[in-house]
Amino acid sequence: MSQLKGACVIGQSGGPTSVINASALGAIEAALDNAAITKVYGAANGIKGVLDDKLYIMDEEDREELKHLRFTPSSALGSCRYKLKDPDADDTDYKRILEIFQKYDVRYFFYNGGNDSMDTCNKISKFMLKNGYECRVMGIPKTIDNDLFGTDHCPGYGSAAKYIATSCMELYLDARVYDTGMVTILEIMGRHAGWLTAAAALAGDYAPDLIYLPEIDFNIERFLDDVEEIYKKNGKAIVAVSEGIHDHHGMFINEYASSGIEVARDSFGHAQLGGLASYLAGLCRHRTQAKVRGIEFSLLQRCASHIASKTDYDESYAAGRAAVENAVGGISDKMVGFKCSRDGGYRCEIELLSLDSVANTEKKVPREWINQAGNGMLKPYTDYALPLIAGETEQAKVNGLPRFAKLKKVVAR
Amino acid sequence: MSQLKGACVIGQSGGPTSVINASALGAIEAALDNAAITKVYGAANGIKGVLDDKLYIMDEEDREELKHLRFTPSSALGSCRYKLKDPDADDTDYKRILEIFQKYDVRYFFYNGGNDSMDTCNKISKFMLKNGYECRVMGIPKTIDNDLFGTDHCPGYGSAAKYIATSCMELYLDARVYDTGMVTILEIMGRHAGWLTAAAALAGDYAPDLIYLPEIDFNIERFLDDVEEIYKKNGKAIVAVSEGIHDHHGMFINEYASSGIEVARDSFGHAQLGGLASYLAGLCRHRTQAKVRGIEFSLLQRCASHIASKTDYDESYAAGRAAVENAVGGISDKMVGFKCSRDGGYRCEIELLSLDSVANTEKKVPREWINQAGNGMLKPYTDYALPLIAGETEQAKVNGLPRFAKLKKVVAR
Repeated sequence: MSQLKGACVIGQSGGPTSVINASALGAIEAALDNAAITKVYGAANGIKGVLDDKLYIMDEEDREELKHLRFTPSSALGSCRYKLKDPDADDTDYKRILEIFQKYDVRYFFYNGGNDSMDTCNKISKFMLKNGYECRVMGIPKTIDNDLFGTDHCPGYGSAAKYIATSCMELYLDARVYDTGMVTILEIMGRHAGWLTAAAALAGDYAPDLIYLPEIDFNIERFLDDVEEIYKKNGKAIVAVSEGIHDHHGMFINEYASSGIEVARDSFGHAQLGGLASYLAGLCRHRTQAKVRGIEFSLLQRCASHIASKTDYDESYAAGRAAVENAVGGISDKMVGFKCSRDGGYRCEIELLSLDSVANTEKKVPREWINQAGNGMLKPYTDYALPLIAGETEQAKVNGLPRFAKLKKVVAR
Repeated sequence: MSQLKGACVIGQSGGPTSVINASALGAIEAALDNAAITKVYGAANGIKGVLDDKLYIMDEEDREELKHLRFTPSSALGSCRYKLKDPDADDTDYKRILEIFQKYDVRYFFYNGGNDSMDTCNKISKFMLKNGYECRVMGIPKTIDNDLFGTDHCPGYGSAAKYIATSCMELYLDARVYDTGMVTILEIMGRHAGWLTAAAALAGDYAPDLIYLPEIDFNIERFLDDVEEIYKKNGKAIVAVSEGIHDHHGMFINEYASSGIEVARDSFGHAQLGGLASYLAGLCRHRTQAKVRGIEFSLLQRCASHIASKTDYDESYAAGRAAVENAVGGISDKMVGFKCSRDGGYRCEIELLSLDSVANTEKKVPREWINQAGNGMLKPYTDYALPLIAGETEQAKVNGLPRFAKLKKVVAR
């Protein structure tokens, strides 16, 4: 394959993770150091930056400052949730992207994101090919949801899982401090796939008593029976639920809450609406008469870089580098994936997957990794996930607080 | 002062912190190593353990295992919220405590807690004195609320403040990832004193735009004006509020939420009740038309030992040791406090405070540390608090997760 010389664009898309900037750094450093790449641009807010002709010149950044990207959460270049239209229906955006690529002689496009972003990569790649513009396109996976098809796991998942498991351990001890009864409901992210909620099981001896994923239809009566049984036995019950749990009609339990079905009332007679956790907590209070707590893990799941997994960081960085190195080596139209083995120690290798096969397919937690009753995780899951949360990062600190990257963000003209 | 030989009881009381067990460890290790102390008991669930004759024999614990208490959050011996009656009105509990102290020859009582616990210490100390039973009583401070009178700060506060400041930094980046408008409301603990909410200001460049403490009456219209102004200027606004904010009648804004006053409605017309954060977020959406988020920091503020402050750990441990050493040295009826100077570097010394002066007095954030508008913190506060969050701990990890102490808890017969 001939060497292709030209500029590259690196973009970030979708929701933040603790390590998406580690992937960006891997790609940026590899690109800056590669003679085939003449200029390194960062797209402001993902593909929108290309459409808006707003590209940051990464060559202008200080190399030492860039290194701080490794431990800076969220998307340093900015992100977007912009879905490109089907080019057969409307190719306006694609023509604009081609125009910008030509303007800056962009021959490499690296896009870091989840399902939708891989779809974006795929469509751009096919459009360029069809229009005879030579440009190598590589997807770099990123999603705390861990739902990308084809890869063993996704960068971002390990750190989110580590945050969730650690927080579950801490809350387990917190909930046991008094000798009075208590039911605690933890609401964890994951609308369609239960990977994040499953991570609660990694807390081992300190894991929630019950774990409910969206992979299995949720039945409120069965849930209340489960909670009551545990509570009667132990005087405490901790439950982890995915935000995406739904009944067998597909209606989210969250919607029960907001529509006021079976609204719980507190001891003052106040209606208890609000999020899923407080809704279920209210029902548990009604059933068990116990003191209850609803806790939503919220956005910190995806951005708590202070407790990121070293394995996740290292792999995310490696994925970014691999995208650039493979593209310069002649590869295009692929997503960087991981192929892992866990027998006799964890090993992870880069594997290139076709964008066609990855885009728009969701990977769920296998049924056989969930217990028969549908309220807990089995060993195959913990065997799978424990290596992904291993290792501590050495985030730079100033005055006891994280030191994040501060980029100049010089815009190309 | 003559040497007093006998057993000691160590108890933990009130809500958990990340470092209360560090104080317990300091006291336990000092007691185990001291020839004057014949036996070391841990009270199960604080003073309730004494009343119920349920004392753990700490001498039976493995010394190496005990060391893990240092990085184990929450109260390892169990806690309680039990307020002793006025002994003049009903001395039943006190007589029972004396009986148990006599049964086990307890001559030293160390109690680790907040305001109420210092009151408990004080009452027990006075009762024993009055009844001619020689027993030295020392309070060890503990509260994330930082509201104990007389001491520069309280063990537990630094770690909670570090968690809050770090989380604010991470959420700041998270909220800026898209180029669309967003208002984020962060709800932080602290019913009567704003110390924890003030810690949001430690995030510096990444701090919330607005910070509201319960020290100042909250006015919803002024709050909405403040938010709107910031939002119009920046397209983003992040606001930290204390759970204890209240109007000028003293009514908690939280009660507005649960009583349905000015209920906000989301874009589907669903009522948005729930916690304070989501209530205020709903009002901000109505005012700014921005996308909004309400995030409650929840219990992790007090138990997230994975991000505890080394300064806080070291001081908490030292406070526990100092209580034992001073008591054996002949002192009684005191709380261990901190006297600190910050000119030319932070220095912290142990200071003994009379229990009378500490019990039942709350320390608030000084008005002059809050800006004139009542919506932000000034430099005297950050100068005060930054040293308290300094330094990282080296928590032992197994498989990427914390390794907590596992005690045998052999009960004395």
